[in-house]
Amino acid sequence: MATVSLKQDPDVLAARLTRAAETAAASDLDALLITPGSDLQYLLGVGGESHERLTCLVLPAKGEPALVVPKLEAPGYADTPLDELGIKVVTWVDGQDSHGMVAELLGDATRIAVADAMPALHTLPLRAALPGAEQVLASPVLRELRMRKDAAEITGLREAGAAIDRVHARMSEFLKVGRTEAEVGADITEAILAEGHTEAAFVIVGSGPNGASPHHSVSDRVIQRGDVVVIDIGGPIASGYNSDCTRTYAMGDPGDEVRETYAVLHAAQRAAVESVRPGATAESIDAAAREPIAAAGFGEYFVHRTGHGIGLDVHEEPYIVGGNPLPLEEGMAFSIEPGIYQQGEWGARIEDIVIVTADGVESVNNRPHELVVLPA
Amino acid sequence: MATVSLKQDPDVLAARLTRAAETAAASDLDALLITPGSDLQYLLGVGGESHERLTCLVLPAKGEPALVVPKLEAPGYADTPLDELGIKVVTWVDGQDSHGMVAELLGDATRIAVADAMPALHTLPLRAALPGAEQVLASPVLRELRMRKDAAEITGLREAGAAIDRVHARMSEFLKVGRTEAEVGADITEAILAEGHTEAAFVIVGSGPNGASPHHSVSDRVIQRGDVVVIDIGGPIASGYNSDCTRTYAMGDPGDEVRETYAVLHAAQRAAVESVRPGATAESIDAAAREPIAAAGFGEYFVHRTGHGIGLDVHEEPYIVGGNPLPLEEGMAFSIEPGIYQQGEWGARIEDIVIVTADGVESVNNRPHELVVLPA
Repeated sequence: MATVSLKQDPDVLAARLTRAAETAAASDLDALLITPGSDLQYLLGVGGESHERLTCLVLPAKGEPALVVPKLEAPGYADTPLDELGIKVVTWVDGQDSHGMVAELLGDATRIAVADAMPALHTLPLRAALPGAEQVLASPVLRELRMRKDAAEITGLREAGAAIDRVHARMSEFLKVGRTEAEVGADITEAILAEGHTEAAFVIVGSGPNGASPHHSVSDRVIQRGDVVVIDIGGPIASGYNSDCTRTYAMGDPGDEVRETYAVLHAAQRAAVESVRPGATAESIDAAAREPIAAAGFGEYFVHRTGHGIGLDVHEEPYIVGGNPLPLEEGMAFSIEPGIYQQGEWGARIEDIVIVTADGVESVNNRPHELVVLPA
Repeated sequence: MATVSLKQDPDVLAARLTRAAETAAASDLDALLITPGSDLQYLLGVGGESHERLTCLVLPAKGEPALVVPKLEAPGYADTPLDELGIKVVTWVDGQDSHGMVAELLGDATRIAVADAMPALHTLPLRAALPGAEQVLASPVLRELRMRKDAAEITGLREAGAAIDRVHARMSEFLKVGRTEAEVGADITEAILAEGHTEAAFVIVGSGPNGASPHHSVSDRVIQRGDVVVIDIGGPIASGYNSDCTRTYAMGDPGDEVRETYAVLHAAQRAAVESVRPGATAESIDAAAREPIAAAGFGEYFVHRTGHGIGLDVHEEPYIVGGNPLPLEEGMAFSIEPGIYQQGEWGARIEDIVIVTADGVESVNNRPHELVVLPA
């Protein structure tokens, strides 16, 4: 299957590669081994997934990097300025020992980091080919880079946010009493693509009791008059950056209990967004969302963390969760998505992607946050 | 992100689990550890990818299987008859040591197999949690099961084949002189979804010289009068089974050299399909495709294996490649896709998915195999 080339600025890629190598050196690593996935997309501008044939960027802490790639797949890297980046290309054909070729490039390495996404299909043969090298995860190195978005990445997140906002703006076309969640979800999937995404990575249509299951997808449940419906949707745009936005809808008047509970959630989400600024900790944002919900007596119904970082992955660092003392910095991007879930009855969630600015916060999602009451 | 439940027949799943455990025992394994991906889809009927929170089926060679799953994601398995299958559910919440919970279930295991798709993010922590257990790949066990498709799987492959045939049947709507490959590819992507796929997993529009790069995707190249265009497309349908079909098109009369070369390819593809029957080896099918191409003097321009198995993964066992002595059996499914590539000029490929029957072969792709000449 094909790689997806994104034509990144060579200077940006060069700076990322240099910083990754420097951070690896500072972490006592001999090299990073990066197979296709979001880490490789970040470092080389080429997306796509890992397959049965090994493609691997070998990035030594000191020395010349190399890209080991099947000869058939090398053209997928034609738009990447490998020469300019000083990356040697090592191609291989079926029958050659690709894992052994990586080992040869590494010599007597004793500690190497592998991409978190590397499948066991490659992790285990690389371990066998490098029996003297301890394998550790590359994320402690790469999250230091990827967590802080540069200007092009922020543009990507803004574009993705605007694209998913356009889908939510059209929700009354899709979400109607008498349709199944799956039917609504199919229309939303089409709209996600039509509004500029390359994939509908997830489509949650949680109606009535299904709204109380935060990771519900869609089902054959028919949407009823009076239902509360959680719509949590997103995916990547062409640059690779992801959208992720949740709004909660009501099919006609949901009644006072829902309105009052939702008002608590709405205030909590706003309080958490307003607490974001450089220097605030990740756990303090989680607490800012959690406290008003707990104060209203719904603490036990908010069953997940407040948010997750987002970029080339839908879930990445920083995680906005109790126990994470990470101080926020300008350029960090993450979701703020508290929810209140009444098991067996209904649920509600509000989610925006926000970016830490020099003195506060910018939201890339800008649809109204109120409960959206649709005709029923 | 959501799991995708497929509502499989419990008896089918029970038989697969039993056979997987028996095969593991025969391979001197204490257990299989299967994270989300096609292996888990095969064993539990639930699709989806692995994420940062561990979900893992612990399938001991002897003893009670267990599903370790984040509490939030457990509802995604509601349609799987876990009770009936005798699978204990072990939920965990953020902050708990999920990898340690798997280790506890395994006790003093000394040899465990991990799913090929398991990301290093879980493979490395599981190794640390089970320091006394050697990790090997699960594919040698699971390919024995997955390589031979049962009736429901064959139905899935037939449905997927018919769906992608409908897309090729509409190609003259999309593929026109003056459009870019990317524009054509976007329309094909929409058609792949409209014709019953849940995702366009790959869309190759290789026009002119790009057709000579077998793993090309799409580009901004404008399609010209006289171009030969390789269209290789596919993806999963709702049951999880994949399509994959290539046809080659010409924008107006391509001239005698192309016609003559194409005739060689056409004959080679047909010869390879006709050589499929139980007992024939994988490598003999590869040879049947390769010999007529070599005899015509184009051997060096057929630069890849003849085919790959297909099912829940687009690429899986059996691989139709020189050096693979595997005897074919009824129920095996794979591509037959020879190509001839004139570097810098043009390429052609013809690909069908075929299934080994009791006494021969069935093709799930049934569009004409001739070069399709479109008006230009």
